[in-house]
Amino acid sequence: MEDLSGDPIADLITSFNELNSSTAEELDEEPSPLEFMRYVARNTPFVVRGGAVDWQAIKRWNANYLREQLAGHRVNVAVTPFGNADAPTPMEGQDELVFAKPHEEDQHFEEFLKYLTTQEKGGLGGEVRYAQTQNDNLRNEYSFLYSQVPPSIPFARIALQKRPDAINMWIGSSQSVTALHRDNYENVYVQVAGSKHFVLLPALCQPCVNERELVPASYSRREDHLHLETEEGDKVPFAVWDPDEPEMRATKYSHLATPLRVTLNPGDMLYLPAMWYHKVSQSCSEEGICVAVNYWYDMEFSGPLYPLTSLVRTLGNQVTK
Amino acid sequence: MEDLSGDPIADLITSFNELNSSTAEELDEEPSPLEFMRYVARNTPFVVRGGAVDWQAIKRWNANYLREQLAGHRVNVAVTPFGNADAPTPMEGQDELVFAKPHEEDQHFEEFLKYLTTQEKGGLGGEVRYAQTQNDNLRNEYSFLYSQVPPSIPFARIALQKRPDAINMWIGSSQSVTALHRDNYENVYVQVAGSKHFVLLPALCQPCVNERELVPASYSRREDHLHLETEEGDKVPFAVWDPDEPEMRATKYSHLATPLRVTLNPGDMLYLPAMWYHKVSQSCSEEGICVAVNYWYDMEFSGPLYPLTSLVRTLGNQVTK
Ligand SMILES: O=C(O)CCC(=O)C(=O)O
Ligand SMILES: O=C(O)CCC(=O)C(=O)O
Repeated sequence: MEDLSGDPIADLITSFNELNSSTAEELDEEPSPLEFMRYVARNTPFVVRGGAVDWQAIKRWNANYLREQLAGHRVNVAVTPFGNADAPTPMEGQDELVFAKPHEEDQHFEEFLKYLTTQEKGGLGGEVRYAQTQNDNLRNEYSFLYSQVPPSIPFARIALQKRPDAINMWIGSSQSVTALHRDNYENVYVQVAGSKHFVLLPALCQPCVNERELVPASYSRREDHLHLETEEGDKVPFAVWDPDEPEMRATKYSHLATPLRVTLNPGDMLYLPAMWYHKVSQSCSEEGICVAVNYWYDMEFSGPLYPLTSLVRTLGNQVTK
Repeated sequence: MEDLSGDPIADLITSFNELNSSTAEELDEEPSPLEFMRYVARNTPFVVRGGAVDWQAIKRWNANYLREQLAGHRVNVAVTPFGNADAPTPMEGQDELVFAKPHEEDQHFEEFLKYLTTQEKGGLGGEVRYAQTQNDNLRNEYSFLYSQVPPSIPFARIALQKRPDAINMWIGSSQSVTALHRDNYENVYVQVAGSKHFVLLPALCQPCVNERELVPASYSRREDHLHLETEEGDKVPFAVWDPDEPEMRATKYSHLATPLRVTLNPGDMLYLPAMWYHKVSQSCSEEGICVAVNYWYDMEFSGPLYPLTSLVRTLGNQVTK
């Protein structure tokens, strides 16, 4: 292993690790707006166990109920061969990774749900489907269900003085994994059915994640298989290190990362601070589905954190690319 | 001027400037704890005009009152030839700067006050005196006066969930200037008599301030003058760039700094966020004194800001030393 003594980036990551907990804090009720703001100020995640148990969504949204409510509706579904929507993926027979976007298609909700549960319960192979449009879909595609969640998370609305930019519904199965990435949003993530397994890293671990410029590619249906084809257009800067396979595609800093691991069960709520890297995998409820809702609030770009995070990215990429 | 295009540190400072105001926000009443926490989260200063006008200290502390209350008491006074306590100073006849600590002595308060006001009103030369022990002096040396200020600033106490680490009294004249430096404290600074003129820079401007390792030195009385002598012991890392003489001792980044300038008048309150550089000069009341009180609250070391600030310091020193 390379000697990193005196390396400023290594010192950054190790001093962060020394000053911060390696587990997420657990609250047993929702924070007040002021308590929440203290976490935002520290850009530090927490979980509220059972924070959403009283939501109608948590009580009602099982497979039957969703099927009834959305009968006759079509929803957008991301289709991939391996559950790898928006993930670094090798082109067939090649080593080089591309950024694989899913094949997207509208499906009848009943058909989509039946596919998910049948595949999951039967342990079957075949293409993987995930309803994961991150375009405020709960207020659009799924608007019939919207009244069963709060229109905003009160502690976040009051603290951040903003309405959510997007409220997203996620319906998938254990076949799908969301690859490690980060968003410029304060994220409140609520589990409805099944479980989600988050692996979390602070933004200053950018030098650990091996960001590469990936050629964009998309899946499309060809006869009876999904065909991955590269696209014209700008390359996509994306993390190719996987904290669950830490030896592969590591940078010289990756071994310094100490990821936080959090599992959310129905009714649990996670505050995922802006710019934190997250990889998300899932387990299904007995019915064979995994359902979650999250609220994205625009992050604050003033103050020192955003420009400092950009600096680390520039430095990280200089050293690791 | 050196070409800084593509320089990550230059980009850091200019992107901060683009995303942040170049003046301090002005409030006309104290913030709530939640409002305050939003500023702490953004590590961004504000001024509350008249925020302390109702304090007994603001109403009562004129020269006469202070003289009466502290009659017979001795206070610690920092004595320097140029008002340069704790400031980078050239040794006589040399170019090299040392870190000049004041001669400290206990003086009868009446005598100290008389010296200040006589010197100020007469426009006289001679040694400069400043009561500026930053050791919680209002709860110790000046404890007779302590009941006339709040024991903590309510919005800060509630938001930060801490008692102040120190409450400091500052009594000086227009002859004293506090050199550009930074502290690991959240600072609430209240002007009582006269005015203070703050020049403020965020911590990420470290590469602008030309930090040097200065040999420590102290003034002592020798016959009838103040003699500056270097000391054994660790060098003192200290900013030698002066935002009021921006061409002198500049680094290649200094011209990118856009200092915030704030003048506090009696009853005004400044939130000076942790780690911000500040240079402070003063003007006197008609009586020829300048009096202020400030509250230091321990800063939060968890979260990304402290390690990121340390990174910038390491990088800044690598490039500019
Ligand atoms: O639930 C998932 O699969 C991913 C969630 C996510 O990336 C997000 O909430 O930003
Ligand atoms: O008032 C002054 O002279 C300096 C104040 C200062 O440095 C502080 O409050 O930290």
